[in-house]
Amino acid sequence: MQASRDKRDCASEVIARCQTLARFSEDTGSLRRTFLSPPMRECQREIAGWVAHLGVTSRVDAVGNLRIVYPAAQLDAPRLLIGSHLDTVPNAGAYDGVLGVVLALALLSAIHDRKLPFAIEVVGFSEEEGVRFGTPFIGSRALVSNLDEELLSRQDARGISIRDAIADFGLNPAEISQAAMHEDVLGYIEFHIEQGPVLENVNRPLGVVEAIAGQSRVEFTFVGQANHAGTTPMNLRHDALAAAAEWIGTVESHAQNTSGLVATVGAIQANPGAGNVIAGETRLSLDVRHRSDEERKRAVDYFVRQAEDIATRRGLKAKRNVLMDQLAVQMDPFLVKQVEHAIGQARCEPYRMVSGAGHDAMILAGKVPSAMIFLRTPGGISHHPAESVEVGDVEKAIECGVHLLEQLASSSEFQRKTKHA
Amino acid sequence: MQASRDKRDCASEVIARCQTLARFSEDTGSLRRTFLSPPMRECQREIAGWVAHLGVTSRVDAVGNLRIVYPAAQLDAPRLLIGSHLDTVPNAGAYDGVLGVVLALALLSAIHDRKLPFAIEVVGFSEEEGVRFGTPFIGSRALVSNLDEELLSRQDARGISIRDAIADFGLNPAEISQAAMHEDVLGYIEFHIEQGPVLENVNRPLGVVEAIAGQSRVEFTFVGQANHAGTTPMNLRHDALAAAAEWIGTVESHAQNTSGLVATVGAIQANPGAGNVIAGETRLSLDVRHRSDEERKRAVDYFVRQAEDIATRRGLKAKRNVLMDQLAVQMDPFLVKQVEHAIGQARCEPYRMVSGAGHDAMILAGKVPSAMIFLRTPGGISHHPAESVEVGDVEKAIECGVHLLEQLASSSEFQRKTKHA
Repeated sequence: MQASRDKRDCASEVIARCQTLARFSEDTGSLRRTFLSPPMRECQREIAGWVAHLGVTSRVDAVGNLRIVYPAAQLDAPRLLIGSHLDTVPNAGAYDGVLGVVLALALLSAIHDRKLPFAIEVVGFSEEEGVRFGTPFIGSRALVSNLDEELLSRQDARGISIRDAIADFGLNPAEISQAAMHEDVLGYIEFHIEQGPVLENVNRPLGVVEAIAGQSRVEFTFVGQANHAGTTPMNLRHDALAAAAEWIGTVESHAQNTSGLVATVGAIQANPGAGNVIAGETRLSLDVRHRSDEERKRAVDYFVRQAEDIATRRGLKAKRNVLMDQLAVQMDPFLVKQVEHAIGQARCEPYRMVSGAGHDAMILAGKVPSAMIFLRTPGGISHHPAESVEVGDVEKAIECGVHLLEQLASSSEFQRKTKHA
Repeated sequence: MQASRDKRDCASEVIARCQTLARFSEDTGSLRRTFLSPPMRECQREIAGWVAHLGVTSRVDAVGNLRIVYPAAQLDAPRLLIGSHLDTVPNAGAYDGVLGVVLALALLSAIHDRKLPFAIEVVGFSEEEGVRFGTPFIGSRALVSNLDEELLSRQDARGISIRDAIADFGLNPAEISQAAMHEDVLGYIEFHIEQGPVLENVNRPLGVVEAIAGQSRVEFTFVGQANHAGTTPMNLRHDALAAAAEWIGTVESHAQNTSGLVATVGAIQANPGAGNVIAGETRLSLDVRHRSDEERKRAVDYFVRQAEDIATRRGLKAKRNVLMDQLAVQMDPFLVKQVEHAIGQARCEPYRMVSGAGHDAMILAGKVPSAMIFLRTPGGISHHPAESVEVGDVEKAIECGVHLLEQLASSSEFQRKTKHA
């Protein structure tokens, strides 16, 4: 079952292919490939050309997901999904999402001399980043039958609805239900760059994701009194920016002192926002994530109380608006163990971790056993042209993937387990 | 020398006149009257109409200042300037600047039955706020011969230079030098709303300004590392907004603990400024004012060191860009004492204070003895339609002004002193 070619060559080809796909862009000089854009079609055609000789069937489903099926030894066998997304953010790097799809193709190449007791369906999701319609996971939501009429009516910046965008791409919105998974799906495996500095920091090439963190997004507003910066003594101020700054400090220190918690204020707007005027109002974003929903909610409650206390002490008001309250998603324990074992088989020390970012696996996990393998991300840099992966790490990921397929192929428990899930 | 009319009527007329002038606006529904705008011409005509019967001569000098001369008892007598500015910020109130001009006119009315040993020149400065050309004090700078070619070439948002704006207004830029004060000016007196909460807080209608605070404006930039808010653990962050927040806290607490110091961060911009991205860069304004230039510079140095220390400890860089370093200006001690006495004569408790805001008196003080009287500003609210003054306070200001003129008229010391200054 080992690929006949040198492993390092396979890894180099994966990297070269990611870079090739990065040329299919809506922008000149940088990569942006959003949902149902013309370069997405070219990207899919390029990929289909690469795998045509492997005896696969390729199609694009009604929401634009690329779906390549490598048949099993038997016709009525179940299938294992392996994939990630093909859309990108603006000014993107070459690996976020794309690497997971191209790695899955490399696994098909690695096993193409034999058939497994299950089919492998490689899925290149058409939409994960949420750039075009402000709504992420449109591709994976089609597989779990979670696209409703309201969502399909949402419009992009040019006023085109998702429904119309699907038709413009040459697809039929009436066939969206046919994109859904059937009972025959054993599970979902996703390779993805970590997009963070953890694996680099612990010096491991691969990580196994135990859970995808839940996420709260809350907008806070401190309302004080705008006033003249020169004529208002310090003791008579109700400075909304100074209050916000104090609160940012409590958010940061509480997160630093709470295991596994990340809390971020990334956006801030002070009004009127002039250098010689005391801010009368300051709006801030708050992003809180933790693998435990209980811990996350406790943290958000603490930050709300802190905002209120700071505002009261300073004679201001604090307001808040909850924008998101997304529960944590656990990966399948059996698959997590299998991935961990496969990483060990690839002669790497496995590292269990929580994904702070959302991924297609989060959506698929609602219906089928799912697992994710993270690849070390140099400098933790993603969503940026400088995003990269080490060829040696890609080699380990392919090794891990091949071992994982071997393990699952020999595991009657896997097929039994998932059949009765 | 007391006005024959009831004092309260005079004060009410001052307020009514300010409100009348507020109707001469570039904007519909709110007051904006910038340098050399059409409503400025209407405003000047209205004022000239009010004083025509007082035996004055009125002209508009080559930078658009309205200059009304009430003659002295003798032809070759020196003159005392009393004034403020007639331009406004956008969405302005009716009193900032305008009140000082209208109050000066009320003083002419109050004394119009007699002549003094000095002429009174009421000056309505054409430009103080710096709105149209981003440069304040254009009107008063003409009186101290401080308008150079570079300044006159500056352009407004529509690409019109100051020079062209002067010509468009029907004035002759070649005559700017004729706007300058001559040797015969004894001094300059300016009434102005406080634009702050201090007098209200100490429950006094009038304040005498001892000095106009010096001012530093510095732009600070913290440069960290933008990163994913979900995937970057707290201990591996270089969060430019968290660093900036910590620094804002040190600025505020140091100013709170330093007598007479005001320090303000009013503008902030975090980049990229997304809720789910750790800020990689944050820019902030810093505005520092104190009557002592030494204290002010010490404070700025402290804030710079704090920024550098915070940045270093967090693995960031701190940069700064000094935008303004304006020295404090002392009011004339003799005039300050005279104003203080006149306030007492008006049966008010005088309150010595520092102006945190810049005023035309700051420019005039470079050439002639100058003094300012502040009127209590309800709620400290200025640069806003809700800006107001109490009629009783205006009455006290007129009384104070009349007493001041009486004192100066009988003070041979004043004329001798200023002649040899």
